[in-house]
Amino acid sequence: MEQSSTGRRGGGRAARQAARTARAIESVPFLTRNLTPVEVMGEEGLALIEANADTLLEQVGVEVIDFPEALDIFRKGGCDVTETRVRFPKGLARSLIATAPATFTQHARNPARDVVIGDPNVVFAPAYGSPFVRDLEDGRRYATLADFENFARLAHMTPSLHHGGGTLCEPVDLPVNKRHFDMVMSHIRLHDKPFMGSVTAPERAQDTVDMVKILFGPDIEAGKTVLVSLCNANSPMSWDRNMLGSAKVYAENNQACLITPFILSGAMAPVTVAGTATQTLAEAMAGMAFCQMVRPAAPVVFGSFASSISMQSGAPTFGTPEPALVLFVMAALARRLGVPFRSGGNLTAAKTPDFQSAYESAATFMPTLLAGVNFVLHTAGWLEGGLVMGYEKFVLDADQASMAGPLLSGVDLSENGQALDALLDNPPGQHFLGNAHTLANFETAFWRSSMADNSSFEQWQEAGSNESVARAHDAWKRTLAEYESPPLDDAVDAELTEWVDRRKASFPDSDV
Amino acid sequence: MEQSSTGRRGGGRAARQAARTARAIESVPFLTRNLTPVEVMGEEGLALIEANADTLLEQVGVEVIDFPEALDIFRKGGCDVTETRVRFPKGLARSLIATAPATFTQHARNPARDVVIGDPNVVFAPAYGSPFVRDLEDGRRYATLADFENFARLAHMTPSLHHGGGTLCEPVDLPVNKRHFDMVMSHIRLHDKPFMGSVTAPERAQDTVDMVKILFGPDIEAGKTVLVSLCNANSPMSWDRNMLGSAKVYAENNQACLITPFILSGAMAPVTVAGTATQTLAEAMAGMAFCQMVRPAAPVVFGSFASSISMQSGAPTFGTPEPALVLFVMAALARRLGVPFRSGGNLTAAKTPDFQSAYESAATFMPTLLAGVNFVLHTAGWLEGGLVMGYEKFVLDADQASMAGPLLSGVDLSENGQALDALLDNPPGQHFLGNAHTLANFETAFWRSSMADNSSFEQWQEAGSNESVARAHDAWKRTLAEYESPPLDDAVDAELTEWVDRRKASFPDSDV
Repeated sequence: MEQSSTGRRGGGRAARQAARTARAIESVPFLTRNLTPVEVMGEEGLALIEANADTLLEQVGVEVIDFPEALDIFRKGGCDVTETRVRFPKGLARSLIATAPATFTQHARNPARDVVIGDPNVVFAPAYGSPFVRDLEDGRRYATLADFENFARLAHMTPSLHHGGGTLCEPVDLPVNKRHFDMVMSHIRLHDKPFMGSVTAPERAQDTVDMVKILFGPDIEAGKTVLVSLCNANSPMSWDRNMLGSAKVYAENNQACLITPFILSGAMAPVTVAGTATQTLAEAMAGMAFCQMVRPAAPVVFGSFASSISMQSGAPTFGTPEPALVLFVMAALARRLGVPFRSGGNLTAAKTPDFQSAYESAATFMPTLLAGVNFVLHTAGWLEGGLVMGYEKFVLDADQASMAGPLLSGVDLSENGQALDALLDNPPGQHFLGNAHTLANFETAFWRSSMADNSSFEQWQEAGSNESVARAHDAWKRTLAEYESPPLDDAVDAELTEWVDRRKASFPDSDV
Repeated sequence: MEQSSTGRRGGGRAARQAARTARAIESVPFLTRNLTPVEVMGEEGLALIEANADTLLEQVGVEVIDFPEALDIFRKGGCDVTETRVRFPKGLARSLIATAPATFTQHARNPARDVVIGDPNVVFAPAYGSPFVRDLEDGRRYATLADFENFARLAHMTPSLHHGGGTLCEPVDLPVNKRHFDMVMSHIRLHDKPFMGSVTAPERAQDTVDMVKILFGPDIEAGKTVLVSLCNANSPMSWDRNMLGSAKVYAENNQACLITPFILSGAMAPVTVAGTATQTLAEAMAGMAFCQMVRPAAPVVFGSFASSISMQSGAPTFGTPEPALVLFVMAALARRLGVPFRSGGNLTAAKTPDFQSAYESAATFMPTLLAGVNFVLHTAGWLEGGLVMGYEKFVLDADQASMAGPLLSGVDLSENGQALDALLDNPPGQHFLGNAHTLANFETAFWRSSMADNSSFEQWQEAGSNESVARAHDAWKRTLAEYESPPLDDAVDAELTEWVDRRKASFPDSDV
């Protein structure tokens, strides 16, 4: 790293180049894919899986837990409801989902940060939901609001993250039933990217909607989408009041939901790829159809979080090949349904940002990019199967995520891309460093990692023999030191503060 | 790791399962891909690149350095030779390469280890050519014959490596002009997988051929292919006496060559993906055509080693997106030519097996698998841009390589794979751990890493809070302790020893 900023070509030039590159990345609010998504099976296989999912929805259906209101909605939507079991006549789920938009815009308070979710776009969001944090200096510990705020600031400062995410970590120093106020306030104040709402109870989803009404004004009433929130099924084949109730609140307000079966194959679904895909599709279709019953054309994102378990110990595993195949299959199934798709990320079971953590992360993230995922939660920070949000891991993952742009842009076959003149002009044996074509293209030619050390062994040794994690530690500390909060209208801030204070005071703290 | 061998299901059962899995992997001499290779451009783009390569071969041609005999061969083969420059009339290279086999068998001294190189197969070989080695205990140091022998033993003991490789590391304690004798002897004695010959001078290639004649007997005269050796172009657009001369020796004896332009884009080729692909294709076609001129139908493998450089410091970089795109393109171009393809590996510029090393490795290896590479050199051990062969990196890479089998086998859509009965039988909310389908499939359901730690944080902490590199250190030491050499006929061993001793004594040591 040291070497790259004071490299052979001289520090001034390298620094100017780095600044230009950073600005270029900064200006992209989301990625647009040129590469055709990778398919691992043909249309016949995909149709078979959807037919099986339809059979599953017809014969077994989904169990709705503790949410009678949803049963009415399902019944009115055409489902066969017996007690708490909801069954879908064949084809019903697909026909309902047909009203969902193929792409939609999620607005940020800074319009330059609006993201368009759906093909051929790719949006990266940080990891979500960890009760612990870890950094090199203080090790592993329970997360606090201070950590949450740090990650919101880091998300703001990280060009490769297009989205501020949601529960960046659980602020366990706050009462469970009031955390969402502070999390949403942090998202509103500390970064200007789009973000996610609370889903731990329908009333907390409503609080989130009420807060964005203050932030965005009357446009929300008119259906402006400013939230994308994470509603997970209780696999296998169940949906509970908190998740489905939150989905109902968001859909009513034309806010988007990531409808995501969270599946560890072998535990919450069959051990096979096709079986897991079938169940994921059935559960997601039920949830997406529900949103369309609540409000036709409400934006939804088809989500899949599938991993496997160690059949020896029962422990979840990440970065393994079977979930990668599930990911490719689910992305293709989402394309067939015509809805945006969420999956993947930089997932790992490792406890620290070591070799295992990186290899497992990449073994999920590369399929994530190639499969054509549109919304990537858990892009940065995930450790220990999601129990830990890592400061250094966040920086290292975000650096790797910045590689996605050049990869997904594919091969340039323009005349300049072909470089035939350069090839014909350049005599055998003579290097291309001074070639006019090289000089004209070198600034943008190659993706450049800000975290990789490409210096010589001697340079690296002289600079302290630092491994990735030590360099990443310096990087996040430096980023936080350089952080400036994006300006927020004082009146809006005051109104939000007053509203939150009033709401917080209106009911007692609770730890459920 | 500790946890996985003494997991919740009981040590005995887990151990038996691990042994079964190991044996199952052990029995596969190479992988066969079911997944369709990933394409990043259409036929039109590929045809354009080949047309440009043909123009390059026609107008610029290749320079042949210090090897007049090759000029005669090229002239007789139909090329236009002016002084040391060889130009190919349009279409000539492709028509010559048409005689090369699409697949061929490389025989090992243990016939169960024979590999079939070409579509749809995948063969993994260790890293190649490092002057240094590194391990956790003794750090970075010059490699010796003792290290070479250790890596040959590790290759023998590693089920995911199908091939023993070649210059596993440079035994710099031996004279340059006699190292090849000891390297080839180590390959013959210490493992029973196929291996590579010397290419540092034509006479050393001949020594290698003479040695395998002793090992394999008269079958070699009849054209049995037992060597695959690495012949790199001197990019841009040059071939020298050592590499082309070695290729000639091997081709004459129907032994295979990996004809590989080794290109750092921006230095030895244009900075663009298409430009690099064009030059790589031209150089490789010239080399493969040469082999076919020497002996029509001699086995050749189209090789591509392309990476980029930091345009700030000039340092080589690995695991970046542009070389991944080159890899996908070259694999497709090789398929169009109908020859086996070599590329990829677990490449990194990192100095130690840290986060960077793993992420960069995976960011090359995943494209390697998906692009449809048939022969993967540098599968295990590569560090520091190839300057270092790492003991721990070797173990960690080989573990990840074992994931390729399940990934490349694709999605099982059989009745058992669909698991529809299991899905229809399983009530909502009830886990699948005890489901009959799960019990019938759990032993083979998921790939299992032998190096990943999936235990809980508390278990991991109790076991010493070991990161990947510490676990890998234990693993390679244990593997070497458990090593048993595969039996070699005493008479053959004696004849080889005598032959090598006589050859070594017949000319003085030299350091060139």
